[in-house]
Amino acid sequence: MWSKARKRILVLGGGFGGIYTVRALQKALHGRTDIEIALVNQENYFVFQPMLAEVISGNIGLLNTVTPIRDLCPGATLYVRTVERIDLDHKVVITSHGFRPEPSVLPYDYLVLALGTLDNFGVVRGLQEHGLHFKTLGDALVVRNRLIHLLEEADSEPDAALRRRMLTFVMAGGGFSGVEAIAEVNDFVRDVARRYPHVDPAELRVILVHAGPRILPELPASLSRYAQTMLTRRKVEIRLQTRLAAVTADEAHLTDGSVLPTKTVIATIGATPNPVLRALPCQQERGRLVVNAALEVPEYPGVWALGDCAHILDHTTGQPCPPTAQYAVREGTRVARNIVAAIEGTAPRPFAFADWGVMGALGHRAAVGQVLGIRVSGWPAWVLWRAVYWSKLPGVTRKVRIALDWLLRLLLPRDYAQLNVSPSERIMREHFEAGEVIVHQGDPGDHMYVMIDGEVEVVQQQAEGGERVVATLTQGEWFGEMALFNEEPRGATVRTLTTVNVLSVDRRTFQTLVTHIAPLRDAFERLMRHREAEDKARRQHHEEERVLC
Amino acid sequence: MWSKARKRILVLGGGFGGIYTVRALQKALHGRTDIEIALVNQENYFVFQPMLAEVISGNIGLLNTVTPIRDLCPGATLYVRTVERIDLDHKVVITSHGFRPEPSVLPYDYLVLALGTLDNFGVVRGLQEHGLHFKTLGDALVVRNRLIHLLEEADSEPDAALRRRMLTFVMAGGGFSGVEAIAEVNDFVRDVARRYPHVDPAELRVILVHAGPRILPELPASLSRYAQTMLTRRKVEIRLQTRLAAVTADEAHLTDGSVLPTKTVIATIGATPNPVLRALPCQQERGRLVVNAALEVPEYPGVWALGDCAHILDHTTGQPCPPTAQYAVREGTRVARNIVAAIEGTAPRPFAFADWGVMGALGHRAAVGQVLGIRVSGWPAWVLWRAVYWSKLPGVTRKVRIALDWLLRLLLPRDYAQLNVSPSERIMREHFEAGEVIVHQGDPGDHMYVMIDGEVEVVQQQAEGGERVVATLTQGEWFGEMALFNEEPRGATVRTLTTVNVLSVDRRTFQTLVTHIAPLRDAFERLMRHREAEDKARRQHHEEERVLC
Repeated sequence: MWSKARKRILVLGGGFGGIYTVRALQKALHGRTDIEIALVNQENYFVFQPMLAEVISGNIGLLNTVTPIRDLCPGATLYVRTVERIDLDHKVVITSHGFRPEPSVLPYDYLVLALGTLDNFGVVRGLQEHGLHFKTLGDALVVRNRLIHLLEEADSEPDAALRRRMLTFVMAGGGFSGVEAIAEVNDFVRDVARRYPHVDPAELRVILVHAGPRILPELPASLSRYAQTMLTRRKVEIRLQTRLAAVTADEAHLTDGSVLPTKTVIATIGATPNPVLRALPCQQERGRLVVNAALEVPEYPGVWALGDCAHILDHTTGQPCPPTAQYAVREGTRVARNIVAAIEGTAPRPFAFADWGVMGALGHRAAVGQVLGIRVSGWPAWVLWRAVYWSKLPGVTRKVRIALDWLLRLLLPRDYAQLNVSPSERIMREHFEAGEVIVHQGDPGDHMYVMIDGEVEVVQQQAEGGERVVATLTQGEWFGEMALFNEEPRGATVRTLTTVNVLSVDRRTFQTLVTHIAPLRDAFERLMRHREAEDKARRQHHEEERVLC
Repeated sequence: MWSKARKRILVLGGGFGGIYTVRALQKALHGRTDIEIALVNQENYFVFQPMLAEVISGNIGLLNTVTPIRDLCPGATLYVRTVERIDLDHKVVITSHGFRPEPSVLPYDYLVLALGTLDNFGVVRGLQEHGLHFKTLGDALVVRNRLIHLLEEADSEPDAALRRRMLTFVMAGGGFSGVEAIAEVNDFVRDVARRYPHVDPAELRVILVHAGPRILPELPASLSRYAQTMLTRRKVEIRLQTRLAAVTADEAHLTDGSVLPTKTVIATIGATPNPVLRALPCQQERGRLVVNAALEVPEYPGVWALGDCAHILDHTTGQPCPPTAQYAVREGTRVARNIVAAIEGTAPRPFAFADWGVMGALGHRAAVGQVLGIRVSGWPAWVLWRAVYWSKLPGVTRKVRIALDWLLRLLLPRDYAQLNVSPSERIMREHFEAGEVIVHQGDPGDHMYVMIDGEVEVVQQQAEGGERVVATLTQGEWFGEMALFNEEPRGATVRTLTTVNVLSVDRRTFQTLVTHIAPLRDAFERLMRHREAEDKARRQHHEEERVLC
């Protein structure tokens, strides 16, 4: 526990940058009981990011890409919390609370910021509501389960168009992360589809959408071309020089005007800084904290930043350092040594590092990369990829487990048990583009909707054929609530006239809320009476019309 | 797909009973293209229940106790759905919908009911709200993560009483399932606690509550005693002849009047039939479907029932068959053969089976059991337990994976990465016993509450000391909503006067609802104005009192 007598070095973030800072500090400060090293991370484990894509396909067991932080950094104090606020002037960090109602306040003497970045799904309409992330272990699991869920559903779906929609998988972003993930998605669905007797492999579509003229822009053009050829041969469709324009529950709209019918859009686009860092009174460069050559925040001595959340210029080249694990690890070591220098009163040293290269896996025994200036591709690159990353795995336990996983993948069939990890949300936002149908007349209903913005029309099929617009609804209005109570099918179709955002509430939640919250019950009852009166009036009007005809 | 020309055998439930029925059917009907075998199950996998407890402690990898059903029953049609209704007169089963809005309707010619039972947490106050299940793979994961979460929190909790509350784990139910689970919980927390520097192992309490005079009542008394001694030696506290009376977020109340401060109550009590079966117009015995000696439902020829959901009398002894995997497997084979007999027009045969015995694992290399009449205990029983159940694992893949898991457990340290699978509910019911505090004056607040029933008092600490009851609230009234908007600490303490059930809504959900649902916003604003006026009046009254004094 913290006491005034001890100095505390507080590291925020347990990715490559944070963990390797702590490890280097522990080594350098071994035996110093007057210094406490503490780490704040949202999870109690460190994720070995380069192998996360293999969790999707099940090449690697669910928990084998992660290592408990306490095992990696024994002796450091770990807080499994979310950072809520940093107060640089008072030298405290405020984190989320656990079982106590009050947030925790962690004072520090030295602070290391290694909070990485967040996905910025706000850049594309509907992406926040319907897009899948691929950043954390939880994300990889969600993607994996979505794939299995869709295969299961497709297997018993007689409608061919709907089945193809279920069997189309879209990835936005052709950098290393997107390419590695879509390669694993492709391997997985094409392999596992064979167990689904009613899924025709020809119906599977796996699509990679990339804004630039070639994927993997970090590599020389010849290697990008190699990767493209290899993925195309494995039936991944590559769409270049286009990007996501909008995503709904049923479609991906691209900027080139094409619309892909799909229920799965994964995105590795749009990194944004952690909002906690954005709030700091420090210079930032495109959302990253500007640090000096020693990786210290110039406005606040004693505060360091590194990894993806820091804007670091390479001391020798003057170029910004790329946001890769290699750099984060080296930056962590440098920050640790400079903190030790600060404690001991010696001079800090600038950060400098020449990377050994870049590599990307392309699924099924292929990879591509440039290592120490030499271009490699195909299975030799894949062997090299595995050798390099395996050797970087922290700890013997993971090395053994992952080696066994890889061995078993050669011997045993692929696993595809669908471990449901994300119970469907009961209150959620949904996005629709213009011209989409939100509810269909005649369908049973189990959600009600509140309009957040946009405009919809309510139309009814007429007995004599044709349809009639019954109402148009805008912000704040409700629809679909009738079917939740009388268990009758939807009495009308609701179609969007513009892009529309709604709040959808499922039957159980709506009933709970209406039962226990009196004002809501009253409003609901008023609305029911109003709808009934309207309906009656309309029928009467209709009768009259008919009589007049 | 189903067509009139083919006959369909539909099996509901993918536990031991359902899966082994399908497998026996497939064997007997091999090559018959005029008969379709279909199975409905909520998950796409079969759980090998006897090893589920080892998932808690991580002896076995998360997905290694489960096998994809398509691998176990290739050629059968699988529907990953929930059964919503069975219409025996029209010979159709209605299941939940997938991506389509309408439910699926599955016609059948022969029907097998193998839906097992559900936990009946309604028998204990607050158990539904705060108890943990131990029945499915998801349950095992939730329990595992709760244990890790509590260890993490306890490690940074300075309040000793709160820390001990976090480190107390209670299991209700001393049958095989409860004993095996609590033994694994005990092994896990005591082993992993060593990685938590601020957790004193002496603070750990693991408690087994059992209603009867001895645990494992299915075994001879001497073996029950052995199990009790063994568990006690490993520091499991056993409370006999008492049961849960009530559960809250912070306490377990027992019928003997004792109150255990704990945040973890797991229960394996109170099996109840699936409500879908309860609705059937068939004779039932204590919630189980009564079948004839051939396992057919007498009222509806062509409908069979087996496993935990059926009331089966052993043909030879006249005793009800126990709800165990052994019996379910044998019953499945018998049902399959009798269906084949029905198809072929031959006579069905009655079910008869003499079990080979019962065994229960006690954690860390100990078990207990009676096999072929011989009593076994200790590590020989444990070796036998593993040998027997390993040999029963379906398929080579699981056999290899689990053998490797067991081997690795001997060589590598235990894993304790906390894979968050259940995002905290945003709207949930909470139960409180009389005299508990729901919100504390001065604490920051991130939930608002709606009273479902019971009575609470709102009290304020006075500046001059002492406290004053400001209000009492009952059904339908709200509290705690102020703190969600003005970010100020709670202005009063709310304490229960009776047992109380509330609906708690978290900040984000409440803000979303209030922002988008106008009637709720209006009611909320009215309430805010009312509270402010009340507050002002109270302050004025106070001033006057002071002036008068």
